[in-house]
Amino acid sequence: MKLDAITSRDNPALVRLRKLAADASGYRKTGSLWIEGDHLLRAALQRGWRPALVVLTEAALQDPQLAALAESAPRALVVPVALFKALSGLESPAQIGAELSLPSQPAIDPAAASVVLDRLQDAGNVGAILRSAAALGFRQVLALKGTAALWSPKVVRAGMGAHFGLRLVEGLAADDLAVLSVPLVATSSHDSQPLHRVKLPAPCAWVLGHEGQGVSPALMARCALRVGIPQPGGEESLNVAAAAAICLYESARQQG
Amino acid sequence: MKLDAITSRDNPALVRLRKLAADASGYRKTGSLWIEGDHLLRAALQRGWRPALVVLTEAALQDPQLAALAESAPRALVVPVALFKALSGLESPAQIGAELSLPSQPAIDPAAASVVLDRLQDAGNVGAILRSAAALGFRQVLALKGTAALWSPKVVRAGMGAHFGLRLVEGLAADDLAVLSVPLVATSSHDSQPLHRVKLPAPCAWVLGHEGQGVSPALMARCALRVGIPQPGGEESLNVAAAAAICLYESARQQG
Repeated sequence: MKLDAITSRDNPALVRLRKLAADASGYRKTGSLWIEGDHLLRAALQRGWRPALVVLTEAALQDPQLAALAESAPRALVVPVALFKALSGLESPAQIGAELSLPSQPAIDPAAASVVLDRLQDAGNVGAILRSAAALGFRQVLALKGTAALWSPKVVRAGMGAHFGLRLVEGLAADDLAVLSVPLVATSSHDSQPLHRVKLPAPCAWVLGHEGQGVSPALMARCALRVGIPQPGGEESLNVAAAAAICLYESARQQG
Repeated sequence: MKLDAITSRDNPALVRLRKLAADASGYRKTGSLWIEGDHLLRAALQRGWRPALVVLTEAALQDPQLAALAESAPRALVVPVALFKALSGLESPAQIGAELSLPSQPAIDPAAASVVLDRLQDAGNVGAILRSAAALGFRQVLALKGTAALWSPKVVRAGMGAHFGLRLVEGLAADDLAVLSVPLVATSSHDSQPLHRVKLPAPCAWVLGHEGQGVSPALMARCALRVGIPQPGGEESLNVAAAAAICLYESARQQG
């Protein structure tokens, strides 16, 4: 590994990474990703990803565990804290980050247990759903156009490493889902059967809709099954990431 | 209702509301709350709350539904959009907001189905958990010291109205939970039984811990039961609001 001490904020690599860190969909143009923090970097390494570049603070270089993480890249930049902060989207910046090359987007796996995101807006919700999908055994996430960029820094942070174990396909139109052989299942508050009384198909693709508008009518029409989450508390509504967790859990529970 | 057109940002009521909107725990000093948007105001009205003051834009006054909402307060201020924006925490500000007087904090109901928040930090997580609690029939939320301020503008926004139907008690020490007659149940990844195979006590109090550190050892020691959420996807972890939704759903499901 080549180790460079950088003290100028005009260093070309730092300029490039600052842009990447600040641009939610920058990865689509550059094909690379800035991730921050040792947790995300470890998660990527565990899944076989290799960083193109690691950036760490001078203090981090003195920490044997963080310094060892830097060894995973062919090149590492050691920077003062102030320069690292300029790369960070966090109130308490991490001490280490990495640039990863994104592989080209995979094709849809027609038979995989999946989660379909229909124009979800909130990065925190999308990241939380990716975590739930990874934990509960749904290995593919399909995002329709209008959904928050899956590899944006905010979504990646909220995903806490789940991204690196998932098959992620985004920018899809509803028609693209026609290749799926697994049935689509959506939550709906009307014309639906109670989730806990339905025998859910397995594998299936859970469809989650826009925070305000829900699933689009066109996509709802493609769903083989509509279920309602029982709400003994009354007419309150659930956050979409909470609803997603419940649906994915119920699928996993029925599978035993 | 008294209707005042205000054009100065130095108007004392606006000055007071701007402070309130910007201060996560300002309500603890002032005893009042700034809520933004017709959805939250309607939710409060439906639960019998009455605003002390409504603020709306000139455009909102021309909208019969929003103008009718303003009638719920003894006084309404009509302001230019720019002055309303200064009150807003949103990228796309609402057109109407209200000041509510917070009643004094209730005592703990020892027998209520409850959710206990142990130092949860993220306002979005706390708000989402309040929504899940309200929807799934857990009427009391008990927040230990160190948890995000329950009535902060961000938590109230994420709560989407759930606050107004819940019994909310905050600033608690772990010892204060001794008055509960319902058993405490926590999720834990070790020394626990699988959630879907356990007969859950009902009513119970679900304990949810800090995003990074989990439930404190002292509080865990008070728990009558520890359960693990099955994770067929492997060692990934769940967002705490997702885990909460699953636990509260499983309680509701077992109750039928």
